[in-house]
Amino acid sequence: MKFNIALLAGDGIGPEVIDQAVKVSDAVANKFGHEITWKPALTGAAAIDAVGEPYPDETHDVCANADAVLFGAIGHPKFDNDPSAQVRPEQGLLKMRKKLGLFANVRPTFTFPSLLDKSPLKQERIEGTDLVFLRELTGGIYFGEKGRRDDGETAYDNCVYTRAEVQRLAKKGFELAMTRSKKLCCVDKANVLETSRLWRETVQAMEKDYPEVEVSYEFVDAVAMRLVQWPNEYDVLITENLFGDILTDEASVISGSMGLMPSASMGADIALFEPIHGSYPQATGLNIANPMATILSAAMMFETAFNLPEEGKAIRDAVNRALAEGIVTEDLADGGKSYGTKEVGDWLASNI
Amino acid sequence: MKFNIALLAGDGIGPEVIDQAVKVSDAVANKFGHEITWKPALTGAAAIDAVGEPYPDETHDVCANADAVLFGAIGHPKFDNDPSAQVRPEQGLLKMRKKLGLFANVRPTFTFPSLLDKSPLKQERIEGTDLVFLRELTGGIYFGEKGRRDDGETAYDNCVYTRAEVQRLAKKGFELAMTRSKKLCCVDKANVLETSRLWRETVQAMEKDYPEVEVSYEFVDAVAMRLVQWPNEYDVLITENLFGDILTDEASVISGSMGLMPSASMGADIALFEPIHGSYPQATGLNIANPMATILSAAMMFETAFNLPEEGKAIRDAVNRALAEGIVTEDLADGGKSYGTKEVGDWLASNI
Ligand SMILES: CC(C)[C@H](C(=O)O)[C@@H](O)C(=O)O
Ligand SMILES: CC(C)[C@H](C(=O)O)[C@@H](O)C(=O)O
Repeated sequence: MKFNIALLAGDGIGPEVIDQAVKVSDAVANKFGHEITWKPALTGAAAIDAVGEPYPDETHDVCANADAVLFGAIGHPKFDNDPSAQVRPEQGLLKMRKKLGLFANVRPTFTFPSLLDKSPLKQERIEGTDLVFLRELTGGIYFGEKGRRDDGETAYDNCVYTRAEVQRLAKKGFELAMTRSKKLCCVDKANVLETSRLWRETVQAMEKDYPEVEVSYEFVDAVAMRLVQWPNEYDVLITENLFGDILTDEASVISGSMGLMPSASMGADIALFEPIHGSYPQATGLNIANPMATILSAAMMFETAFNLPEEGKAIRDAVNRALAEGIVTEDLADGGKSYGTKEVGDWLASNI
Repeated sequence: MKFNIALLAGDGIGPEVIDQAVKVSDAVANKFGHEITWKPALTGAAAIDAVGEPYPDETHDVCANADAVLFGAIGHPKFDNDPSAQVRPEQGLLKMRKKLGLFANVRPTFTFPSLLDKSPLKQERIEGTDLVFLRELTGGIYFGEKGRRDDGETAYDNCVYTRAEVQRLAKKGFELAMTRSKKLCCVDKANVLETSRLWRETVQAMEKDYPEVEVSYEFVDAVAMRLVQWPNEYDVLITENLFGDILTDEASVISGSMGLMPSASMGADIALFEPIHGSYPQATGLNIANPMATILSAAMMFETAFNLPEEGKAIRDAVNRALAEGIVTEDLADGGKSYGTKEVGDWLASNI
């Protein structure tokens, strides 16, 4: 098969880790007889510096015409702590999600047996944890009307959801639950928010279409607690944009393998794959960043966007072997021998 | 001194744990020569059952005329999972907060050395943790305009903050930081929300009035991660209503002593004290609920509302002794000998 993949390296360590994912993806394509054409495009602070905005139209065209998007990371310290900055890398991210219609962010959290001791949680609490958040990504308070009134003394942000937006996200949740343990948790704040009541009633009405799925409804504050107490009691969780932002980041810590966690953002037409970690500016150019999360995001791309599970598995197997044999960057080396970003990428590519 | 204290027992285990706090407070009053008049009033599901609404006007009058409010817990399963319920116990809570002007919720999280092993987090992560959240409690998306349009197909919730609302909360935060380690963290989502940008710019402008306080600004998703990774790096955290709801519950798990954590909600005129745990309906009437969080809330009341630190300390010392001597309810007994709710209350009252 032939694929065009938009390649958005972004800022900080983005370019370095993306390079390794390209290398490994090419090795997979080579082995299985596919042909990948990479289409690099600018995004984030890098795009602001080059053309004055974080998600330029040319970049959108490249993405919209690709079979999938592989994304590194964005964000640069020069834009932080400056509430008055007019252009921010994050705006590019939001614009990209909206224009590409990426309404479902898929964030798995799972454990690697050899890394259990890296978790801040006790081992008996996390053993067997394998959960997936589906976060709504193009609605809610992120995209509602926002602004100031009273000469700037009053600020407002509007949170809005339509039933159709909830349905399409929940549908993905039910479908995902059917391929897993058939347990779905709808996370909301229905005791306070009208949007949450719409979420809850919409999901309740869909239950009859998936009689095998056992659905629970929990308040976001309760989930924030229980996630840390007994993460392995959860399987598939669906939630709105802002709750998802907070809870997926909380969940990413649980397994102790943050540097290894991939994610996908899916729309009707196209999907984007990216590591959950950020642009890690301090490590830029030092050849120390862990490329595995980006490489596992490429595995998710083969599995989900191209429906090629064998190819995805080839990548996962290589990563597991690297972990077992200690071919890891310093974050996983426990003070022992460690390898550079590039060396880990090379090893994985040659072990596909 | 003479005090009138409004006593809102509420639902579930509320009445049982409140009884113990009354007993212990009376013992303190007796020892230090104060006189407490308790003014019981209805709230929560109990009030709905009795008079049809969760925060009746008579209850408000009792609270508004008291020197402080001691609160148990509210919530009853018959109101859960019913998004269409017209009257909910939670509405009473929100109405109470608003009408009493309780704009600052103070939620400490600290460790008890003898209970460190109860935490889901590894001991080395939590040792020394002693942080306080100040959550804004009468503004934001909880109280903005909310509703439906398009025949119920679209729901909305408005998040609104004024500079004055941020200032009065932040002022309490700076003042609290001055009495502690002089570190303040402002938690927001200023990369996305206009209300958060107002929070950040308002707090930034106040920094000059507290030159000794070191202020940091962190995004809510980052704090949701770092709280679980390194809770002992935080001291005082200030944040808006919804973020505070989620993060204070997450933080409550860290120390492993959730059943012991008190809280206060402060306004211009009056303050309310309550355990952070809920109404725990399954345990109602069984004499097994841990009363210590409510009793420590009474300690906070003596210290904060009445400015009587010695009296508060007398309660804390008694609780520490009970923990050391194993005079605890079954949740803390590790399968060993345990005592009833009432017996723990009796022991504490007679050991003041
Ligand atoms: C950078 C920021 C706008 C973004 C978000 O809040 O969605 C990030 O935190 C994420 O989760 O992808
Ligand atoms: C019961 C609910 C309305 C309330 C809140 O969200 O404020 C509770 O979770 C709390 O934190 O006191």
